[in-house]
Amino acid sequence: MSDFFELAAKRQSCRSYDPAQRPTKEQLTACIRAAQLAPSACNSQPWHFTVVNDPVTSPAVAEATRLYGLNKFTAACPAYIVICEQPARLMARVANMVTQQHYAPMDIGIATAHLCFAAAEQGLSTCIMGCFDEARLRELLPLPEKGKVKLVLAVGFAADDPLREKKRKELDEICTYIGE
Amino acid sequence: MSDFFELAAKRQSCRSYDPAQRPTKEQLTACIRAAQLAPSACNSQPWHFTVVNDPVTSPAVAEATRLYGLNKFTAACPAYIVICEQPARLMARVANMVTQQHYAPMDIGIATAHLCFAAAEQGLSTCIMGCFDEARLRELLPLPEKGKVKLVLAVGFAADDPLREKKRKELDEICTYIGE
Repeated sequence: MSDFFELAAKRQSCRSYDPAQRPTKEQLTACIRAAQLAPSACNSQPWHFTVVNDPVTSPAVAEATRLYGLNKFTAACPAYIVICEQPARLMARVANMVTQQHYAPMDIGIATAHLCFAAAEQGLSTCIMGCFDEARLRELLPLPEKGKVKLVLAVGFAADDPLREKKRKELDEICTYIGE
Repeated sequence: MSDFFELAAKRQSCRSYDPAQRPTKEQLTACIRAAQLAPSACNSQPWHFTVVNDPVTSPAVAEATRLYGLNKFTAACPAYIVICEQPARLMARVANMVTQQHYAPMDIGIATAHLCFAAAEQGLSTCIMGCFDEARLRELLPLPEKGKVKLVLAVGFAADDPLREKKRKELDEICTYIGE
């Protein structure tokens, strides 16, 4: 047991950010570079990241995530990474057809985990949001035309976010072990 | 820049395993415990992991991944984690409807990244496979009845797997930066 296990135990969805503390471009770019390395089906890399770390645009993006009374905490969060699915390359499209799977969302999940860990490694907190006004995001940002917005990641410094106990299913509910 | 960045740079899809070196139950369980901590939409945890680390069953699982001439390397890999999607909890199903998204595959991608990093942290190598004979896996293993097999993860010790250069899209192709 060493650092990754500590990082996985420590990383939690943060809903309390310090509005006065903005991540640097270097920190956010380091997150993207970690996501760039993520594995994907047929190395398709079906993702695009729009980083928003701006005193004017960030609050507008934040507002576009506040639907149905959700994500109120974004009022204080200074930065976002908008994650769009991109068309898969030919080999991955063939694989999708043959296996009747759609790999891109899983690839995006993997890349998003890379983003979260890279942020945590740098002392940044994150919250993955799946609920947002995509049309409004498209008005605000030069997003890729093709490919749906899949997730928006809030990124910032925690204001008050003590480590909570992670409420998870029991190990024997999620795992069957066969063998030695 | 510290350990997570090194881990992300070091982890690569391994297609050359040492058949004589079997991971321990403790090592594989540590991987599952890391995946157990993964975040998911509405904390739905829509996943089940079947770990196969058995001299008889592992080769049969390996064979079920060798379709279309793919995954030949599994002939030497001693252990597998079969990852099934599980029905989402009510809140996540409501969220799916409202946002017209299907979060479970992204959640499974996140959990799979946790598995891969937990393995790498322990000196184990992995390869994520999206191509397999699901019907054959269901004959071989007591998989959950509901929920498709999404991925099979090969896990073992690398036999000969020097660090390769990761071929990835350029940063400016996958990222737009707005702000400070």
